[in-house]
Amino acid sequence: MFQTFDPPSSTGATAPRIAKLRDLMAKAKLDALIIPRSDEYNNEYVPACAERLSYITGFTGSAGLAVVAAKSAALFVDGRYAVQAPAEVDGGIFEVKGMAHADLKPWLIAHVKEGRIGFDPRTMSVGAFLQYRALLPKADFKLVPTRANLVDRVWGRDRPAPPEGPVLIHPLSLAGQASIDKLAAVQKQIRNLRFDAAVLTAPDNICWLFNIRGCDVAHNPVVLAYAIVPVTGKAQLFLGARRVTGEVKAWLAPVTKLKPPETFEPALKELRDAGKAVQVGFGTSWWCEKALGKSKRTVAGPDPCGEAKAIKNSTEIEGARAAHRRDGVAVTRFLAWLDGAVDTGTVDEITAVEKLEAFRRETGALKEISFPTISGSGPNGAIVHYRVTRATTRRLKRGELFLIDSGGQYEDGTTDITRTIAIGAPSAEMRRRFTLVLKGMISLSRARFPAGTRGVDLDPLARRALWAEGLNYDHGTGHGVGSYLNVHEGPQSISKAGIAELKPGMICSNEPGYYKNGAYGIRIENLVLITEPRDVGGDLPVMGFETLTLAPIDRRLIAVEMLDAEELAWADAYHARVRAELSADVSPGERRWLEAATSKLL
Amino acid sequence: MFQTFDPPSSTGATAPRIAKLRDLMAKAKLDALIIPRSDEYNNEYVPACAERLSYITGFTGSAGLAVVAAKSAALFVDGRYAVQAPAEVDGGIFEVKGMAHADLKPWLIAHVKEGRIGFDPRTMSVGAFLQYRALLPKADFKLVPTRANLVDRVWGRDRPAPPEGPVLIHPLSLAGQASIDKLAAVQKQIRNLRFDAAVLTAPDNICWLFNIRGCDVAHNPVVLAYAIVPVTGKAQLFLGARRVTGEVKAWLAPVTKLKPPETFEPALKELRDAGKAVQVGFGTSWWCEKALGKSKRTVAGPDPCGEAKAIKNSTEIEGARAAHRRDGVAVTRFLAWLDGAVDTGTVDEITAVEKLEAFRRETGALKEISFPTISGSGPNGAIVHYRVTRATTRRLKRGELFLIDSGGQYEDGTTDITRTIAIGAPSAEMRRRFTLVLKGMISLSRARFPAGTRGVDLDPLARRALWAEGLNYDHGTGHGVGSYLNVHEGPQSISKAGIAELKPGMICSNEPGYYKNGAYGIRIENLVLITEPRDVGGDLPVMGFETLTLAPIDRRLIAVEMLDAEELAWADAYHARVRAELSADVSPGERRWLEAATSKLL
Repeated sequence: MFQTFDPPSSTGATAPRIAKLRDLMAKAKLDALIIPRSDEYNNEYVPACAERLSYITGFTGSAGLAVVAAKSAALFVDGRYAVQAPAEVDGGIFEVKGMAHADLKPWLIAHVKEGRIGFDPRTMSVGAFLQYRALLPKADFKLVPTRANLVDRVWGRDRPAPPEGPVLIHPLSLAGQASIDKLAAVQKQIRNLRFDAAVLTAPDNICWLFNIRGCDVAHNPVVLAYAIVPVTGKAQLFLGARRVTGEVKAWLAPVTKLKPPETFEPALKELRDAGKAVQVGFGTSWWCEKALGKSKRTVAGPDPCGEAKAIKNSTEIEGARAAHRRDGVAVTRFLAWLDGAVDTGTVDEITAVEKLEAFRRETGALKEISFPTISGSGPNGAIVHYRVTRATTRRLKRGELFLIDSGGQYEDGTTDITRTIAIGAPSAEMRRRFTLVLKGMISLSRARFPAGTRGVDLDPLARRALWAEGLNYDHGTGHGVGSYLNVHEGPQSISKAGIAELKPGMICSNEPGYYKNGAYGIRIENLVLITEPRDVGGDLPVMGFETLTLAPIDRRLIAVEMLDAEELAWADAYHARVRAELSADVSPGERRWLEAATSKLL
Repeated sequence: MFQTFDPPSSTGATAPRIAKLRDLMAKAKLDALIIPRSDEYNNEYVPACAERLSYITGFTGSAGLAVVAAKSAALFVDGRYAVQAPAEVDGGIFEVKGMAHADLKPWLIAHVKEGRIGFDPRTMSVGAFLQYRALLPKADFKLVPTRANLVDRVWGRDRPAPPEGPVLIHPLSLAGQASIDKLAAVQKQIRNLRFDAAVLTAPDNICWLFNIRGCDVAHNPVVLAYAIVPVTGKAQLFLGARRVTGEVKAWLAPVTKLKPPETFEPALKELRDAGKAVQVGFGTSWWCEKALGKSKRTVAGPDPCGEAKAIKNSTEIEGARAAHRRDGVAVTRFLAWLDGAVDTGTVDEITAVEKLEAFRRETGALKEISFPTISGSGPNGAIVHYRVTRATTRRLKRGELFLIDSGGQYEDGTTDITRTIAIGAPSAEMRRRFTLVLKGMISLSRARFPAGTRGVDLDPLARRALWAEGLNYDHGTGHGVGSYLNVHEGPQSISKAGIAELKPGMICSNEPGYYKNGAYGIRIENLVLITEPRDVGGDLPVMGFETLTLAPIDRRLIAVEMLDAEELAWADAYHARVRAELSADVSPGERRWLEAATSKLL
């Protein structure tokens, strides 16, 4: 299994850790300490040694921020973790608050008043630092970089070692573009912006650029490393020599020199001393910017690889289609099995996860799952990023909904799909709200839009029907998805914060939801590919979405009378396509189930 | 008439002005000079003495930015002026480019490479300065404040004197809240943010706070003045003594001390020397921030009056409803007259403007028009911010569309309405595209949304139907509207840039459009009031829009078969309400016209 079901370490363990941390803070004359979830690479997925937020707070979610003061402490999380976070942390120590940045200032004013706010310069990104700096009046709060990471000092010898997994080749047959050509395109961008070099610290951007993959963090095949790309000539990749075989060395040789990791800081200082203009991404560690010195020509901006990585080439697009067809077969077989098995009364959240992974393994192509499967029945479904454990698992019961959000890492593509299933007969409210979510999902699927449209400009299409009935969901509608890379990638995002322009070739999720706390959760998620602009008889060519994900949407939850003719046509066409593309690869019994599950709604 | 029809001064006049300006630039060792449209108050509406952009470029639009270099020059304008700007400027001197900020950097890199970029520190806002600073690499471009405004030096004695109109009382019966209570609320905000004082430079915010009005700029009844609001005690209003009668002095006395304008700069320096923390708005002149010195506690942010002004109180809301009913009568009488008069073949764009103003004057309550009426027939309708002159006016011809965008300033409210009228029989394309615009307008009118929703989150609802057919419009969907104040006010904006939260009591326009260059323009505009949140049976109370504007939408342009049942119901209900509210106040002949114009669509 790519996933464990162990309960998280008891929250009781955090009290002595916080006490030790406060001692260290007092010695460093800090009035508060900021502890972000991010690691030295600002990657969403961090290795065990960088699970500092979880170590110090007990909170195991994928995003968050703690602030520890001498007598008070707060954990800031987004809406996805509003239910989970209070359950995981020691309420005697941590107050749980919403949305990190907006709420930080009033909390600090109320609890710290003024003083020195410490942070680890390596785990703070340039972008985050700029936000804190803009937020906090300089006269009241002094942001102080700490010499070492204070949480690591509390952790001491129990802290796991940093990963040093082998580097793997991502061949041209999958990558679709040679690293040397990617490097040339990135260097052209660096030159156009009049920089002398760019510093790369985002693991997925580095993997994309050099056509490599790794196994340093769970589920997402990245290598944790840093790189420097000069405006001409080979790049430098800072990576332990023992991680690289001769074959990999030869693969990298045309585009990059391999350097020992400990030479990264001297290399930055060399750029500084030579007065070079260095492009630093908003996601780059603030420590790098500091090491580059006060060069007037160092400017923080988007990473030069981000958009190029997000725009998939034709090989990657073909790979994504194949991966989704394969994954759709596994998910469809799972759904067919589930429909038969729930009546036995033996299916619980964990057996469902195990069975789904088994179907994916039977494809013979599964390298990993994209993330720990979210498998929530009844009230557990309302926990947006629920992680099932042996302590929380529930049996799937009649009259409840079951939400399962999962994905597979295949060498030709990364998948991510959510389906919500009626166990027994759903209530009228469940059907109505499911259909509102579906209407939003269809509205986004059918959208057409001109060049220049950003994710934020499409997000409301997925919410309008829910808003009209006083409902909403407290998470974004869509995230970018990598090509055998991170299942969450930027710069594109269909959300309130989605300011990057959507461009043809990008892959996004389309996943509106609805969560009734303590009762049930609904989410319907397909991945979609942004299509090339085409002439539809107007003034401007318009882009749209090609749906990649292939699996039935539970017909029993659709209140057909709430769909208009166009929505109905979309749903029927989608189901017809699912049937046509998957039928040949399932058993006769599964095919019968698939035919019923994808039959016309009216 | 509140409007003239004189053609703008010939563009030929700009060449010698530019030559003189370049001489002054050379003496000041500037490689380029930034000339914004904004004046010392960063108000959208500037007095004649501050029409510097128009003086130096010939461009008369309400927003734009020129950059003059030694051998090249560019004018940056937004999509509303894409047609007008090239027609107004000397193409031998000025290259016209889109969207100021995004395009400025590549233009400077291409034409100036590096050097000293001058700007007048008084006409540059803090927000604009921060944008330029972030955009331009410091090593390449040095932003240099000029001692005097160089355009003014070219202008010399021909430059009109700054306005010094009388200050007028805006009584409590119209304002709905005493100035002393507004001041207390603003001071509470200043205290909560831990400032010692705020500097106000936005004329409409100052007028709102002190319950005064003025006549310093055309159409918008503001006083051009500065103010300082300390955290406790009376404010200081910097204003020439001869502008204030004894009565006005007594009106202001409880809330503010009157100070001579020339003491504003010393007052800022006093704050600086006392080490005060001063709140400076993004819209404040950069020169003020500079005068306040390097105080660590001076932070740029939203103006403390902006949101409070935008959220209308119940008196202002009742006033707005009354003003819109009154204005609706005038517009409806105009539309009825137009329908009868076009057949005579004598109506041109100017006579239409004159007639509409006459109907508004007949209400007996018109203080001013809200802005020069945009009266565009045929291809002139495609010029988004078209200003009709004797040189451009066209007769209204059969088979063409006529777009008229106008508004009235009444003491109880400001109106702004656009209707597009079919002259003779419209083409199928005109009807189709008009109906797509209408669908967007209805979609926004019917929207419900939870607390926290921003304008950017609603803007796409107005565009979706147009996008689906490869069409769009290059302007925002809605701007805030003042209460007998600026017809464009912030912070709310329904547009790509609308990041302010929409709150109950705000008034916005809802004005999608479509423009076919050289052929016709379509815009349908109603003002809407954001309603209090109400329970609709879901988890969250939701806000919506109450339409304020009352006038028929041309039925001859509606392709009824393109509307769904809900859109049809909205249109019929709107027309029924227009008829019910206006019928009593029009003549029998006009009533017959109104009844036909508002009859059911099906």
